[in-house]
Amino acid sequence: MMLTLHFCSNSRAQRVLWLLEELKLSYKLNKIKFHPSELKSEEHRKRHPLGRVPVLEDNDVTIYESGAIIEYIIAKYDNRGLKPDVEDKLFPDYLQWYHYCEGMVMPPMNTIVVHTLILPPDRRDPEVLRQAQNLLAKSIRPVDSILEKNKFLIRDEISGVDFMLGHALFMAFNLKCVSEEMENILRYLDFIKSLESFQKAINS
Amino acid sequence: MMLTLHFCSNSRAQRVLWLLEELKLSYKLNKIKFHPSELKSEEHRKRHPLGRVPVLEDNDVTIYESGAIIEYIIAKYDNRGLKPDVEDKLFPDYLQWYHYCEGMVMPPMNTIVVHTLILPPDRRDPEVLRQAQNLLAKSIRPVDSILEKNKFLIRDEISGVDFMLGHALFMAFNLKCVSEEMENILRYLDFIKSLESFQKAINS
Repeated sequence: MMLTLHFCSNSRAQRVLWLLEELKLSYKLNKIKFHPSELKSEEHRKRHPLGRVPVLEDNDVTIYESGAIIEYIIAKYDNRGLKPDVEDKLFPDYLQWYHYCEGMVMPPMNTIVVHTLILPPDRRDPEVLRQAQNLLAKSIRPVDSILEKNKFLIRDEISGVDFMLGHALFMAFNLKCVSEEMENILRYLDFIKSLESFQKAINS
Repeated sequence: MMLTLHFCSNSRAQRVLWLLEELKLSYKLNKIKFHPSELKSEEHRKRHPLGRVPVLEDNDVTIYESGAIIEYIIAKYDNRGLKPDVEDKLFPDYLQWYHYCEGMVMPPMNTIVVHTLILPPDRRDPEVLRQAQNLLAKSIRPVDSILEKNKFLIRDEISGVDFMLGHALFMAFNLKCVSEEMENILRYLDFIKSLESFQKAINS
């Protein structure tokens, strides 16, 4: 097996690195600078037509989209039950919260990044920003509720959902979008930040 | 089995209806008006805390997020091979394009909707709109390429990817974001629009 992860710091690629570390798989890390000169290079565009990360290479397979890569690794390499079987009562929860990450949580987060960091100050719209912050807060509130009873997102053991949605919560926190009343999320974030696998992912 | 789909016209709920029709499953359709009075009602918020569609009920299971529901139905009810097995060489392609839908194609589409329909005219930003249209065009170009060789998205037979990404292409077309040079996408859209199952989904 030869896994290569094409990676940028502070990106969704951290999700995949967290998983690789958690499963103790051996891999090669190709760190790419978050800059068009590297992301949009001819070399990297052969891996991803739009020049994005993460991309995983696994021998003759090349695959992108963090949600797809994590499913791929779990299906191919996980012997530790990171995804409940179809007969497990947690199976629908797993799918729902896995997809909730890109479906509900990331879209307002993208808008917040655009209106705080990307657009020049005179084109940032405070009302659009406020609405996105509102929506993000609403989106993560149900996640705070499910964390009331579990150590990880859908149960007391880690699952594929944590690498996706857990990392999205971490990004939301970094954008100062997790309010103090979201106690369960804050406790969860403290907890995952104590994991060696997570630390490796966010410090690489 | 008792499946109930909570549904709005012109929404991602069409994806699930298309699948239910394609698999000829029996279901009950609960049509909800795309209006806060119904979507944000106490009754519907019990099904989805933010009052969104689609939501699927399957006896004692309630599940939301179109990507999760389609995976759920395929895992529970599909005997027709809509998802390639893990050993199939199409397995990575399946995952990648399945997740590409919400990961790459829907975010610029959401921005386009916001800056053409949702914001009051004086707050729409033509530059933000132009960038989103640009990004959407770039995002669907690789999809045009894969359609050069296949009848459906990842192969000549329909797969789970079509219900997600195929429907996203249909939404992009309705927003006038599929240019004439995307010949393969246009041919694909003509083709899926001829399917009875798809017609039922978009006309309900």
